[in-house]
Amino acid sequence: PDATARDGASDRNGQLTKPPGALGRLEDLAIWYAGWRGEARPRITAPQVLVFAGNHGVTARGVSAFPAEVTVQMVANFKAGGAAINQLSDFAGAKMAVHALDLDRPTADFTQGPAMSEAEVCAAFATGWTAVDAEADLLVTGEMGIGNTTSAAAIAAALLGGTGWAGRGTGVDDAGLARKEAVVAEGLAANPDRSGLGVLAALGGREVAAMAGAIAGARAHRIPVILDGFICTAAALCLFAEDKTALDHCVAGHLSAEGAHQRMLNALGLDPLLSLGLRLGEGSGAALAIQVLKGAVACHSGMATFAEAGVAAG
Amino acid sequence: PDATARDGASDRNGQLTKPPGALGRLEDLAIWYAGWRGEARPRITAPQVLVFAGNHGVTARGVSAFPAEVTVQMVANFKAGGAAINQLSDFAGAKMAVHALDLDRPTADFTQGPAMSEAEVCAAFATGWTAVDAEADLLVTGEMGIGNTTSAAAIAAALLGGTGWAGRGTGVDDAGLARKEAVVAEGLAANPDRSGLGVLAALGGREVAAMAGAIAGARAHRIPVILDGFICTAAALCLFAEDKTALDHCVAGHLSAEGAHQRMLNALGLDPLLSLGLRLGEGSGAALAIQVLKGAVACHSGMATFAEAGVAAG
Repeated sequence: PDATARDGASDRNGQLTKPPGALGRLEDLAIWYAGWRGEARPRITAPQVLVFAGNHGVTARGVSAFPAEVTVQMVANFKAGGAAINQLSDFAGAKMAVHALDLDRPTADFTQGPAMSEAEVCAAFATGWTAVDAEADLLVTGEMGIGNTTSAAAIAAALLGGTGWAGRGTGVDDAGLARKEAVVAEGLAANPDRSGLGVLAALGGREVAAMAGAIAGARAHRIPVILDGFICTAAALCLFAEDKTALDHCVAGHLSAEGAHQRMLNALGLDPLLSLGLRLGEGSGAALAIQVLKGAVACHSGMATFAEAGVAAG
Repeated sequence: PDATARDGASDRNGQLTKPPGALGRLEDLAIWYAGWRGEARPRITAPQVLVFAGNHGVTARGVSAFPAEVTVQMVANFKAGGAAINQLSDFAGAKMAVHALDLDRPTADFTQGPAMSEAEVCAAFATGWTAVDAEADLLVTGEMGIGNTTSAAAIAAALLGGTGWAGRGTGVDDAGLARKEAVVAEGLAANPDRSGLGVLAALGGREVAAMAGAIAGARAHRIPVILDGFICTAAALCLFAEDKTALDHCVAGHLSAEGAHQRMLNALGLDPLLSLGLRLGEGSGAALAIQVLKGAVACHSGMATFAEAGVAAG
């Protein structure tokens, strides 16, 4: 981030017609955004929403309430404009693009070895990296992939330790939840590499790797990122495991209802902007959170100062 | 609310291309909004933001970090477009109007008797009621009034009992906080009426009564209301004390950083949409929460059903 722009934004914030700190987190958000964009009085006019889709070999283990065909069906729904993320992207004034990654070639079942080869994970990561529009001023990454809450749970378990990372996903019953937990344990046993990118390849999926690539690519363009829920945060966690500053350009858009999301956010030191019980993925919670960040920046850049307005500063 | 529209919205919600319940609270919000508007597939196109301003005799007791002149200065700032609520109203596509209520004639110091006479409170209530645009499809009420966190704390103490309702407001120090607590206790001792409207007159202010009038008036037009923070919720509490169903057309927009707001929301059974540490008033938190409700309705009314999209329903 640009220290001059950040300091300029902080100075401006102190002069705006409100009691100090009265806009709470909106003030911090605006200053953070200003720093990354290198402008003390920025605007958000070009958000981008990237949705990546992938299929998971681990679905053969009965870890989802939906059949794997739903991934490709939902990609068609994204392209036709019928999904939640289409509505929320439009509402946020964001350009949305969908990238389906080799849907007819699912990743390998990670209980038998790595989900992806090094070449496969690199290709998916590069797809995400290059999908970022250098002219965007904000990025949301979302996903679709039947089975990917199991993948995300396995990533968290491998990088953060402990158990209980599996959750209900799209709505599995108790038996399904037990299968997910068992599959996660088997995946960890079958894949000993505990580096961030090693775990991404072994336990992730193509859409997870693409999100990690997009998050990293956005940073190269100084584009702030709003993270979505459980799967997106797991992708971000792989970057964090490699470099503790890798997510400094990110905020957590929302707290997912997927049970272990809070634990994952705690590990990353991230405090979500929204907590509305969403557990859809697609980037939906983060796309809604664009509105919070836009509101923060609108106040910061649009408000009058005490001097401009002739208001006593208390 | 219209049970047919609500049931139609609930039925539609069950057919949308997402796992059941995956949009969490957004689903409940859309169905609630549909019921109040009498349309199973509504849109939000005409939000209204009403900001009421009033002056408080109790400021003579040193309860605010800002001088009372700031009320009229901030009204000028609202009219010039320089305040936070201007930016957030514009961002929400809302029509904003400011009503300054007899600023040169503060209410009486409520530690000496009622803040307002019956005629005064009725006039302020009517100002709020008639300010509501019958063509609006959503209402936010906000306020400005140096000293009004003390008034709101006194209302809460009178109607809900207990102590500790006073908070930091715009930023008083420990001595100021102690003065606020003492003033609240004196106000309760001086004004024995514990009916909702009696408390509104005795311990409220003109802007507080106007907000109560606007909230009640919106209901007559079946216009849903997003409540703002501590002061607005205190106004709503006076209605609730008269009729436990009086706020069924309202949601809580946000949790204020003003300490006792959570207790007040708990008493009303309201769960805030946002929790971002705002404590500005003006309607700012509720205006930002318009975006959440708009997002909920955009998903509900814009998404494809499983049948339309050819997606397997799991």
